[in-house]
This record gives sequence, C-alpha cells and structure tokens, in this order.
Amino acid sequence: MGWGDLGAFGEPSKETPNLDQMASEGMLFLDFYTANPLCSPSRAALLTGRLPVRNGFYTTNAHARNAYTPQDIVGGIPDSELLLPELLKKAGYINKIIGKWHLGHRPQFHPLKHGFDEWFGSPNCHFGPFDNRALPNIPVYRDWEMIGRYYEDFKIDLKTGEANLTQIYLQEALDFISKQQASQQPFFLYWAIDATHAPVYASKHFLGTSQRGLYGDAVREIDDSIGKILKHLQKLGISENTFVFFTSDNGAALISAPKEGGSNGRFLCGKQTTFEGGMREPAIAWWPGHIPAGGVSHQLGNVMDLFTTSLSLAGLQPPGDRQIDGIDLLPAILQGKLIDRPIFYYRGNEMMAVRVGLYKAHYWTWSNSWEEYSKGIDFCPGQNVSGVTTHTQEEHTTLPLLFHLGRDPGEKYPLSFASDEYQRAMERIAVVVQQHKVTMVPGEPQLNVCDKAVMNWSPPGCEKLGKCLKPPKSDPKKCFWPH
Amino acid sequence: MGWGDLGAFGEPSKETPNLDQMASEGMLFLDFYTANPLCSPSRAALLTGRLPVRNGFYTTNAHARNAYTPQDIVGGIPDSELLLPELLKKAGYINKIIGKWHLGHRPQFHPLKHGFDEWFGSPNCHFGPFDNRALPNIPVYRDWEMIGRYYEDFKIDLKTGEANLTQIYLQEALDFISKQQASQQPFFLYWAIDATHAPVYASKHFLGTSQRGLYGDAVREIDDSIGKILKHLQKLGISENTFVFFTSDNGAALISAPKEGGSNGRFLCGKQTTFEGGMREPAIAWWPGHIPAGGVSHQLGNVMDLFTTSLSLAGLQPPGDRQIDGIDLLPAILQGKLIDRPIFYYRGNEMMAVRVGLYKAHYWTWSNSWEEYSKGIDFCPGQNVSGVTTHTQEEHTTLPLLFHLGRDPGEKYPLSFASDEYQRAMERIAVVVQQHKVTMVPGEPQLNVCDKAVMNWSPPGCEKLGKCLKPPKSDPKKCFWPH
Repeated sequence: MGWGDLGAFGEPSKETPNLDQMASEGMLFLDFYTANPLCSPSRAALLTGRLPVRNGFYTTNAHARNAYTPQDIVGGIPDSELLLPELLKKAGYINKIIGKWHLGHRPQFHPLKHGFDEWFGSPNCHFGPFDNRALPNIPVYRDWEMIGRYYEDFKIDLKTGEANLTQIYLQEALDFISKQQASQQPFFLYWAIDATHAPVYASKHFLGTSQRGLYGDAVREIDDSIGKILKHLQKLGISENTFVFFTSDNGAALISAPKEGGSNGRFLCGKQTTFEGGMREPAIAWWPGHIPAGGVSHQLGNVMDLFTTSLSLAGLQPPGDRQIDGIDLLPAILQGKLIDRPIFYYRGNEMMAVRVGLYKAHYWTWSNSWEEYSKGIDFCPGQNVSGVTTHTQEEHTTLPLLFHLGRDPGEKYPLSFASDEYQRAMERIAVVVQQHKVTMVPGEPQLNVCDKAVMNWSPPGCEKLGKCLKPPKSDPKKCFWPH
Repeated sequence: MGWGDLGAFGEPSKETPNLDQMASEGMLFLDFYTANPLCSPSRAALLTGRLPVRNGFYTTNAHARNAYTPQDIVGGIPDSELLLPELLKKAGYINKIIGKWHLGHRPQFHPLKHGFDEWFGSPNCHFGPFDNRALPNIPVYRDWEMIGRYYEDFKIDLKTGEANLTQIYLQEALDFISKQQASQQPFFLYWAIDATHAPVYASKHFLGTSQRGLYGDAVREIDDSIGKILKHLQKLGISENTFVFFTSDNGAALISAPKEGGSNGRFLCGKQTTFEGGMREPAIAWWPGHIPAGGVSHQLGNVMDLFTTSLSLAGLQPPGDRQIDGIDLLPAILQGKLIDRPIFYYRGNEMMAVRVGLYKAHYWTWSNSWEEYSKGIDFCPGQNVSGVTTHTQEEHTTLPLLFHLGRDPGEKYPLSFASDEYQRAMERIAVVVQQHKVTMVPGEPQLNVCDKAVMNWSPPGCEKLGKCLKPPKSDPKKCFWPH
C-alpha cells in the first residue's frame, strides 16, 4: 500500500472511512518511512529496530539491489538479532503474528523461534498457483505446523480476484484479542496481512465495490477490517490500554498498475525505488485517551521506530549491545514534539539517499536497468525526471542531488549546486552521513544464497496432511537480484 | 490553486487548517471541475453558468487555443450574457466583487455594468511592474473608478514576494459582510483574490512560514483569510443563513514550479491542459445547519453550477432563453444525491475530452507545441505519458482515448480499444457527445482581437490621481495564442 492510498492522504475516491476515522481520532503521520522499499527487509527492520544492512536483510551479490525472501532463499533472520516479541516477553506480553512473516521460511527462522507465541499465516508471499513440481505452493501455518497451502486449502481465484484471506486474518485477530482480554493478558499483535500485494484479492463481499477496481476492493476490505478491530478493542473496554499503529511496508507497486497497483500520491515512483514513492508510507497512531484526536505530525518516522516505541510502551529499554536505528516516538505522539533525526534510504548494500529536515540528498539514483525497462518493467510509469529517475546507477557521492521536499515533494527540481541553500544544507547533511558511515557495521548478508532444495517442499506438519513434497537435490547458487 | 494544494486533498505539508476545518464542517467535493483550464474563461463560465464557447470567452484564431484577457484584449463579457449578480438583483441581493474581474477591462465590460453593486480589485492579472510606456501598470478599482495601480500604489515586491493584497481583500470582505448584516441585506460576495497566481506573493506575517516556500505562504494566507471570513459570519450570527463555496479557477500552474507552482495531487499535468491536473479543482461547500458536517461528494460538479445553485438558493430560475450548462447542486449538497451529468473539457474552440461517470474520453490530446516545449515551457513537468501528453495536437475523434478515472486517476493507461469495457463505455459517451455537439451554438468569440491602444492607459478616475497615460495609436490585430 502506498502513501496515497487512503482518503486521509488524498486518494480521490476517498474510500477508507475507517482508517480516515482512525486518523481523526488519533494522529496522522505525514513524513513516515519504511527502512527499505521492499517487503522482507522492511519487516525485518520493523521487528529488529535496525536497518536491513545491519540485521542482514540485504545482498552483496551486486551493488544496490533489492532482495527479499523468495522460496529458494537460504538465509533468514539471524539468531543474533533480537526481535520485538522476544523482548516484549520480558514484560509478560503474549505475541502473535497473523499473516506474512517473510523473515525466512526454513526451520531456524520460524517466528515461534523468534519470540512469537502464536502464528497464523504464511512465511512467503502468496504467489502462485504452482505445480508442486518446479515450485511448491506456499504453506499456511498455525503455530509450529502447516495446515494447508495457498491455492489448495486456501483458495485464491486469480480470475475473479476472490479470496477469503483477509476475512480469515481478521477473525484470527479478533479471536486473539478477545482471548487476551479475557485473561487480562498484555499482548502484541502483529497483523501483517498479505493484501494489497499482487496478485490482488478481496473477499466476495468487497469485490466490485470500489471505484478503483480490484486493488480498491482490497483496500476497502483492509479498511473495513481495521474498523472492526478498533471497534472490538472499544467493545472489550481495552482501547485506552491498547496502542495501535497502522502503516505499510513499502510504497505502492506501480508496476502492477493500473489493475493491481496502488497510489503513492504525488510522490515520485514506487516500490523498489528510494524515491519518496517507494519509501514514504501512510501512518496512523491510535490510542484513545492518550493521543490527542485529530493530531497531525511531521515527525520523521520510520517503521524501525515501532520497535523502540513499543518497548517504551512496555516499560522496556532497547538492547544496549547493538546499534538500534529506531527511536522512541512517544514524545512526538503524546506531546507533539519534533525529534531531529535523519532518514536513510537504502537499496541493498548502498545508502542511496538521506533526508535531514526537509532536505533529501541523493547519493545514488536508479530506477531500474535499461534492459528491464525495455521489457516494460517500469517503477515510475508516466514519470520521468531527467537525471533523477535514471536507468543506469548514477553516483552522486561527491555532489549529491539535493531536493527540498516541502517545495518539491515530487523530487523534480534538484537545487542548484552553486546556491547558498545547497551549500548550507549539504554541510549539515554531510555531518550526518559521515557519522552514519563511520559507525556502520554491516551484518552478515542473508539474501545472497538461493537453493531450490530449501523451498517449502515439506514444512513441519506436512505428513499429517499428506502434503509433503520431495525436494530436488541441493544446488546452492548466488541469488540473482535484477534491480 | 490546484486540487492537491489543501491538506484535505492530501497536500503533504497539510498547512490549511481552516479550509480543512471548513471541509469537516461542510462538504468536500472530490470530482469538481472548472469549465476551462485558464482564468478568464473559467470566471466567465462561473458568472454566466455557460461554457466559454457559448459566452464568447474563447478564440477562433487557431485550433484549441487557450485565451484570456490580457491588457490588449479588445473583447470582454458581451452585454447579451446574463451574469449571476444581474439575476440576483431581482431577489434583492447586493453584489460585490473583490479581486480579479478578468472579463474585459474596457468601459462596457466593467463589473458594475454587469450586475455588481460594488467592486474592489483589478480587471487583469497583477503582472508587472511595467514602465507605463510599452505597458501601463494594472489599475485597481474601487467601484467605478481606479484608485491606484499595482506596483505603484499597491506594492508587490517581486524580490521578497511581499504584498499586502490578500489582507486588503480580506478586510474588504469582512467590511462588506458586516455592512450587509447590519442592514439585514441579502448579499452575494464574489471573493476572487489574485493569490496564488504568479508572481506569487504573501503579506509579511505569512512570508517564510510554509514548508512549501512562497507559494505555500500564499496558500496559508488564503487559508487564514477564509478562516477569518467564516468566523466573521459566525460571529455576526448569519452563518446558518449564508452559503459559502470555495474553489479555484484552474489547476495549479506547473510551469511556475517549484518556486511559484502548486500541486494538482496525483493528477496529470496542470493549468492550460485538459488533463485532470488542469481542470479538477479543490471544492468545499459550507453552510452550517444545512449541509451535514463531514460530507464527501463524488457529484461531478463544475464552476458553472455555482451560477445555477446560487440562483436556486435565492429562489430564482436560470434564464430560459439560452442554454445553461450549470446545474443546481443543492440535491447533491443537501440530500447527498448523485446527479448524472457529463463534464466537458474545452480548450478554446475545441471539445478536447468528456467525462461521463468514471470514464473520461479524450477526443483531442495536446500539452503544448514542441517549439514551446523545447524552450522549457512545460505544463507536465516530470510527467510523460506516451501518446497522451502529446506535443502535437492529436486527433482521436474516431477512436477516443478512454480512461477509467477510478482505477487510473492519473490518465496513464488508456483502455484497450478492443475491450468490451471500451465498447460499452464509448456507446454511452458517444450519445452524450453527439447531443452536446448538435445543440452547440458557439457564441461570438471575444478573444480574437488585440490592440495596444485599449490597454489600461487612462481608466476612469485617472485624472483625479494624475495617473492618466497616453495610449498609442489603435492597431487592432489578431491575438496570438501559442497554446
């Protein structure tokens, strides 16, 4: 989902009454970011409070490449990383993940080995259907074991776009919340649904109901579900005791447009890129009785902050033995403070850009290669900013391209290198970047090696279901990441 | 000002608290249009309820050209046109225009000859400063006579961007409202301020206060002023008896970006074009006690509807002796009805496109000429949709380019000509267009002839001020309209 997909963020169909209401009862973040313009690294960053380049969710197979956890990935979240649910356990929290995990699907990466107490969902994207020969269909887990596979036991009709998954995930959420409330148990629910990822789906009740087509149907179903979750918290009388945050893991995937693509508003490009369209996210904080209703924040925020902020809410400190990139947003959320902090825009192993205040400096620009582009793979459809949305990797490390995101949110007009404004801004930014670079210790890259043998052939529990498949011979290779 | 310039429409700086509040207390129109992507024709359409091609605010000097009323224009609003204030007089209204008139500056076109009782403002744009030899500075009128000129008696500092004009216009508005309330006089106030037109200005108090630079300062001052006007109505106890509508005359002028250019959100291109960015406008209706608070409407609306709607509010009928294009929006505003009606997108003498429901069919596409474009004149900066944002006039009358504005608000993905959806939609649209074309009787074009002798050399009242200038010899010529 992208920044522009909600009514509160200016989507012209304004079809998200529940999220818009959530914003009007809570706080809208206009300058909130992901840590990476792709799913797996973004989610790893959210749960570790650390940039993907630290927590290992990146590749060194080539320069500045997006990488994630497809079925043949060998790596995953390292044991050395401390995840939010692991830490929350110390404060007595019960932790559940519903939906897409995406931090590795091999046994050692299982979410219940990393602090979660319960899991309902899937380790990978819902791509498919597969033939279970070249590729197995993606398993759906309940806790330790698989209970079926997408397209087999969990239907997704690619022709009609119908799938009941969001409803199933919603029910799981409501049940989990009810259970914790009944036992007066503090809980952390990570509701990480697959929708609106392509192939886009919605349940029958929502199909054909949006002005925006199937993608809009999916957005409407999410909106409706979140409304139901918030109402459930209120009905149970725990809304004033429950902090809720809504955001997305990357900008809308414009390559899927118009049929399955969302909106990044007026921002440049989309998912896969380090332009604003790829990394600025819709974000809403909700906590009745604590967050002043109708608040709007320009605090530069990041999904990694949810790690630190959640710990703070639980009365815990972030680990002191490692660099944590996420900050505690509570002063911004509860007292309206503005905390000075930079945003780093990474693509794989490269810091592509940095935002300090309203300035954003690009040290590297790239959309994707000419080769891909000529095949119709376009991360910036209809947009073309000369020298900015480049189809070769352009280095600007000695003279970064500088944009003022207040006057020019669309990153169309780089400031003149000769201007005083450029000089002044870059002096400040250079210090921030210098400090970031000298203290940067990259983690062991997890997204370098692929092997068809590690795919979801025989997940735990497959025997009971008669759904075990025979893996091919192991043949580890460098993963190929085209962009 | 463009669709995307208000917080309520997703401007990322969200700096328009008063307009956003006006929307939350009233009704937000998401699908509201101007009748032309340029100032004069748009304003003529608003005041006559008729398309510019009917009321004469267009040119036949060349095909599909934007034209307006610069100082050397010979034409203006014809006497045969019936303007809103003329008609409102019949219901006892006192009518005032504050700000830019733009329907012709020669004596016969004076607003007080066309139904207004009072005028404070100027007949043309605030371009300048001029040397009073090749070009006179633009006069500012109070009622029948000029009281000074821009850049002379009404300062605009192009270096700092400082000008007090919006404050002056605000005070005029507040005073006029107070006076009418005191005498319990029904009134129509057309508050047609110059800001945010380039050269962009703001008063000292607002300069440097916006994230968005000078343009944002101007938007903030407008926002603040409208807040003050609404509060004034409330303070005087007449808010439940006063219908207020906020909109703009064309999309944001992207050629002025980034320093002086606004935002059309995610829509394509800007002012001068018949893409959504040129013609879809921010729009808010406000009438406490009558319009349900927080309303959102997808009614296809047009500035011409303000003519018919205002008459309806005053208990009057639109004239029956001519084609009126504006419709009465009250059923949409008060009862939330959706009235089926098309939107026509004209550029000069050509119907470029039509919107019916969520479909928009382009019969002609053009941004501007290659010649202009090569000189850096760009109405679609950073945007380029192949075959759509064309730099030659492309005719599609036999096979219109069709877009679904729900799935594709950015007009990036024309529907396949072979699709069932295309066939079905075009069948419906063809009927609408056919009916429109066969009943179209174009008015006498007013924007064809230019003559330096007719400029604002010696406006009425100039003698008293010693500000009369000597006109050159009359030399009428065809006006040149490049785009």
